[in-house]
Amino acid sequence: MLTLPNIPQIDADAAEAACRRQARLTKPTGSLGALETLSIQLAGIRAKNRPAVTRKAVIVMAGDHGVTLEGVSAYPSEVTPQMVINFLNGGAAINVLARQAGARVVVVDIGVKSDFEAQPGLIQRKVRRGTANMALGPAMTRAEAETAIQVGIDVVNDEIKQGLDLVATGEMGIGNTTPSAAITAVLCGLPVGSVTGRGTGVDDAALSRKIEVIEKAIAVNRPDAHDALDVLCKVGGLEIAGLAGVMIGAAAQRVPVVIDGFISGAAALIAVGLCPAVQPYLIASHQSVEIGHMAIINKLGLRAIFNLDLRLGEGSGAALAFHVIEAACRTLDEMATFDEAGVSDKQE
Amino acid sequence: MLTLPNIPQIDADAAEAACRRQARLTKPTGSLGALETLSIQLAGIRAKNRPAVTRKAVIVMAGDHGVTLEGVSAYPSEVTPQMVINFLNGGAAINVLARQAGARVVVVDIGVKSDFEAQPGLIQRKVRRGTANMALGPAMTRAEAETAIQVGIDVVNDEIKQGLDLVATGEMGIGNTTPSAAITAVLCGLPVGSVTGRGTGVDDAALSRKIEVIEKAIAVNRPDAHDALDVLCKVGGLEIAGLAGVMIGAAAQRVPVVIDGFISGAAALIAVGLCPAVQPYLIASHQSVEIGHMAIINKLGLRAIFNLDLRLGEGSGAALAFHVIEAACRTLDEMATFDEAGVSDKQE
Repeated sequence: MLTLPNIPQIDADAAEAACRRQARLTKPTGSLGALETLSIQLAGIRAKNRPAVTRKAVIVMAGDHGVTLEGVSAYPSEVTPQMVINFLNGGAAINVLARQAGARVVVVDIGVKSDFEAQPGLIQRKVRRGTANMALGPAMTRAEAETAIQVGIDVVNDEIKQGLDLVATGEMGIGNTTPSAAITAVLCGLPVGSVTGRGTGVDDAALSRKIEVIEKAIAVNRPDAHDALDVLCKVGGLEIAGLAGVMIGAAAQRVPVVIDGFISGAAALIAVGLCPAVQPYLIASHQSVEIGHMAIINKLGLRAIFNLDLRLGEGSGAALAFHVIEAACRTLDEMATFDEAGVSDKQE
Repeated sequence: MLTLPNIPQIDADAAEAACRRQARLTKPTGSLGALETLSIQLAGIRAKNRPAVTRKAVIVMAGDHGVTLEGVSAYPSEVTPQMVINFLNGGAAINVLARQAGARVVVVDIGVKSDFEAQPGLIQRKVRRGTANMALGPAMTRAEAETAIQVGIDVVNDEIKQGLDLVATGEMGIGNTTPSAAITAVLCGLPVGSVTGRGTGVDDAALSRKIEVIEKAIAVNRPDAHDALDVLCKVGGLEIAGLAGVMIGAAAQRVPVVIDGFISGAAALIAVGLCPAVQPYLIASHQSVEIGHMAIINKLGLRAIFNLDLRLGEGSGAALAFHVIEAACRTLDEMATFDEAGVSDKQE
């Protein structure tokens, strides 16, 4: 049985101090918009008046999905392990974006169907070889879902031990927009058709089939919308469970979590369903092309930093947003105040 | 009499090569959204199949505005030179954001009312001590506007000689949302009230007065919407003229220009009015809070990279966007192809 860690409250004093400092910096108050808001959020999360963002990581969880047997993805399942190798070799988008951001990439096999040889950089915490086909029954057992959440908590705790100011969630799993849409439909109480998109790029016929498969999975499994763990094990995924664990583990240690797109968003719905106190620790990086993502962001009460028409996953949008979050903290910390610079303040 | 440089066409072959490479990288085609579009635009501008963005500058032009006598700004005019000193001392938002982006900040006095002592880092190219009050007559003469444009061309050419892959336009000038709104109203053919915002933060009464002042300036000066130079000298500003020159000079040398917010946008309207071939060299960094900015972006046929509720100016939004543009070029250049990584492509 999983024991979830205690999540501390946001430090209101630090947030208030950051807010007061923003009003003294050499600019009209509010003119840095989202940078000001983010800096205040970070201060509250980190319990520091002037938080620094230097140690950054993207945790990429990989898992396969039995539901791909239903023909819901434009790519074959073997792409999941192939892309894991690409991550380890530094050739994927997330590697490039993390390098640029000065962030480390942490690659975790939490549920890939095939096995990897032990190799540098790969964290092997496989819970099972892919999920079962959710169109026929539960994707995994409740115990497996709990184990996968614990993997996420463990992995982020290991990163925190190495020093971590900001963490992003990323994933790789051919087929994983299908369980993400199922989770979104159930936890946001929306029709499947309104939250299901083309994923890596299926055509109209495959999109219709994907919607039918998700509707069937929900009908067969009857997930309980008031029990996030029930939803997760019945229509979720192993990497989704792991990322929910990353969010919970990070929040417990006052580390802000930058969520990526649709799949990370589905994991956030699970994390907040399990631990509502996780919510203020989350930062939505971007608005994904996947149509269900907006429902998730609204449900979580977040606002995406940008919309760049991304739909790749891997944590790519989150890694790109690191720069903006770091800019928020650096302007708060490094800008001169009106007094320091001898600049006249607003005429009242 | 100003002689405008020739602007080359975008290199269609390089853009096409970048587009083909994007389709071979290990991701679903199109899944990096705006990053793909930007990388293709940069390839066409730089005439390189895989353009690099390493040498970056923000050119900040400072000028004062006679129209501040009409009470259109929340801050006094002396803030313009005070902020110039703040830029030189590294304490302003643009300094922090440029440092983070690895970009140099180039500060130009093109029309501040008071004089500066010679000092390191300040380029003194003052055309006149602030504009005249446009509510009573032309802001400057046609010759002064031409001189100010030439200053912009000269300054960017000096930067290009030092090596420049990407340039951003920034400005400082208390009162300069007023001429920017006038330019936008005239060149976009829109009512003044629909393009005039609160600038640094005026109240309702001052906003009404600001709109009246701009309407009066347009009525008094009768700028010709088909003659961008006429609009510029009658209801423009010296820093706006200088930034238009930066855009023209950069485009002439195949250097992409990242435009910041409302004032840089007004300068872009002037630049494109003078030289329509500048348009494909422009990148809109952010959607400003200033209500007239959207009209500018639409008129120019651009799309802002992000909306962070910024309304500071200085080039702050543009400097923040450098990271995204660099990410676009780095993903194009550094990602592995399907063949290189041994990853299966989409099932057809």
